[in-house]
Amino acid sequence: MHIKKPTLIVDQIKAAQNIKRMRDKAAASKVDFRPHFKTHQSAQIGALFRKNGVQKITVSSVSMAQYFASHGWKDITIAFPVNLLELEDINILASDIKLQVLVESVYSAKKLVAHIRHTLGIFIKIDTGYHRSGLHPDDAAIRQITEVVSQSQHLVFMGFLTHAGHTYQARGKAAILAIMEEARLQFTKLKDQFIDQFPNLILSYGDTPSCSMAENFRGFDEIRPGNFVFYDVMQYHIGSCKMEEIAVAVACPVVAIHPERQEMVVYGGGVHLSKESLEADQHFKLYGYIVMFNKETWGDPIPAAYVSSLSQEHGIVKMPEAYLSKIKPGDVIGILPIHSCLTANLLRI
Amino acid sequence: MHIKKPTLIVDQIKAAQNIKRMRDKAAASKVDFRPHFKTHQSAQIGALFRKNGVQKITVSSVSMAQYFASHGWKDITIAFPVNLLELEDINILASDIKLQVLVESVYSAKKLVAHIRHTLGIFIKIDTGYHRSGLHPDDAAIRQITEVVSQSQHLVFMGFLTHAGHTYQARGKAAILAIMEEARLQFTKLKDQFIDQFPNLILSYGDTPSCSMAENFRGFDEIRPGNFVFYDVMQYHIGSCKMEEIAVAVACPVVAIHPERQEMVVYGGGVHLSKESLEADQHFKLYGYIVMFNKETWGDPIPAAYVSSLSQEHGIVKMPEAYLSKIKPGDVIGILPIHSCLTANLLRI
Repeated sequence: MHIKKPTLIVDQIKAAQNIKRMRDKAAASKVDFRPHFKTHQSAQIGALFRKNGVQKITVSSVSMAQYFASHGWKDITIAFPVNLLELEDINILASDIKLQVLVESVYSAKKLVAHIRHTLGIFIKIDTGYHRSGLHPDDAAIRQITEVVSQSQHLVFMGFLTHAGHTYQARGKAAILAIMEEARLQFTKLKDQFIDQFPNLILSYGDTPSCSMAENFRGFDEIRPGNFVFYDVMQYHIGSCKMEEIAVAVACPVVAIHPERQEMVVYGGGVHLSKESLEADQHFKLYGYIVMFNKETWGDPIPAAYVSSLSQEHGIVKMPEAYLSKIKPGDVIGILPIHSCLTANLLRI
Repeated sequence: MHIKKPTLIVDQIKAAQNIKRMRDKAAASKVDFRPHFKTHQSAQIGALFRKNGVQKITVSSVSMAQYFASHGWKDITIAFPVNLLELEDINILASDIKLQVLVESVYSAKKLVAHIRHTLGIFIKIDTGYHRSGLHPDDAAIRQITEVVSQSQHLVFMGFLTHAGHTYQARGKAAILAIMEEARLQFTKLKDQFIDQFPNLILSYGDTPSCSMAENFRGFDEIRPGNFVFYDVMQYHIGSCKMEEIAVAVACPVVAIHPERQEMVVYGGGVHLSKESLEADQHFKLYGYIVMFNKETWGDPIPAAYVSSLSQEHGIVKMPEAYLSKIKPGDVIGILPIHSCLTANLLRI
């Protein structure tokens, strides 16, 4: 491992194990596995998925869809409310691959009818409790959108899609599986209402916490977790993964040691890790755990060591004296990130 | 303005005014003006500084120094504790331009003596109260470092440098100017101790809040503020700038409207704005203010409108009904960022 500056290190064995575990669970439940590639945004990690049998993927922007299409991915869902300013890019992509987008208003559906010239799959985004985006399952606009979409010879109504992102605020398996159960109930009601008219409609569900904790995916047709390939400290705290399943660490050069306050300064700041933090209480904020590398992998985090603050390029690491005394400027330490998606976005591989 | 996805818009007139104001204040105090280019990391914004007479710059990494050197900048200080893993890159740069680095340990100073083969300026980083990095002004290591550095025919001791980053936690002009005054006192003591031995030593001071609020820079030889070229919502809250002096906004496509909760969803998330936030109280977190564009500039923020949460690509904007009712998917709104340095890093121009 030759490190000069902050670098994302992927433990490929752990990442492959994370992929296989989720793939096998989806297969056992007979649901499609369409992992979200926003987590890694990397053709190289994409290849690891492909090697493990994955053909269908999810992304969160037209740009990401273009990138993965250029790397041979032929079936992509853009799980983001369709951006009407990119309709021409969507037309070009849809002429080349099997593409699906999300709609959550009659207004946007009509714009698609007017401008789309190639086969394009349409999911209606449903809000099953996260309240970020999507339509309430009882919203009259749902039927109106299916009617608008049906006017077009190019648009194909695919079904319903939700992201239960409120699992990230929940703690404990029971609370998280209750969120999943609520989505299942609301989805089942929708399916009952529309299945006669659209016999091929599917129910697409996603988020790493509930997909990691659920025993099965009964009632859904497709799952779209993304973060699970890497996991991170936040997922560990939610309970989605074990510490040893975290498959990414950021290698950071040590640049200064301050024994008087049991701290060191590393080259690795907000522009490398992101400013995502965990707060244990009002005075304790955590930007990552500290590990030591052994080639391309690492051991358990050092007890009581953590990133306590981040500037643009500086990371401040708190570390007990017994460990700190062994480290000097020019050494490299590893940081397990709080939110691997944002860190991987900053340190593309 | 042709926008398809989140885009950093710079109001060049405001940015030029911000540059001129700081440049003129430095000139009036007869101190050198060495602005920090980490804020924009952009050759284009660099050209705006050059047009206004700036020749010397500050950066925070070897990579940034390489980038600006390749754009014709010939006098660069890397204001970051020297990274011993990049000594070869530093040698190459030092053979080409006038380069200065920061040292804060005898250990690193000795490594420089052993490996540097070209003229390289050395600042000792002093901690005047921020406690992020640097040596306490009374630390015996300061004299030891000057002695180590003096052994080398290539290393030139330049003086002392501090970043009073704790001004970001202070509120009010009096508190911020007190931090500057404390740095001035500590610096003056150091100068008195070392000036006989190093008659050319300089005192380099920087940070946008105090440089913006100070009437003059008496006692220092050089200032290195960076953020002031753009400013941002955090600087507005600190009191460093007026709202109309903020020179950047992120143009974001609107993708969904939710009148029932006075919200809209924009394409513009943590990977565009960064997750930097301001907290007014435990329940109110703010990721940016909302403006409307008029060509390449914008008006005052819309009252009671703000970015209330960010996912990877989604921004949730709270907006009173009177404004929200005029907006539809496909429109573009502007977001004044909380921390323009991190936003500019994500949306390089």
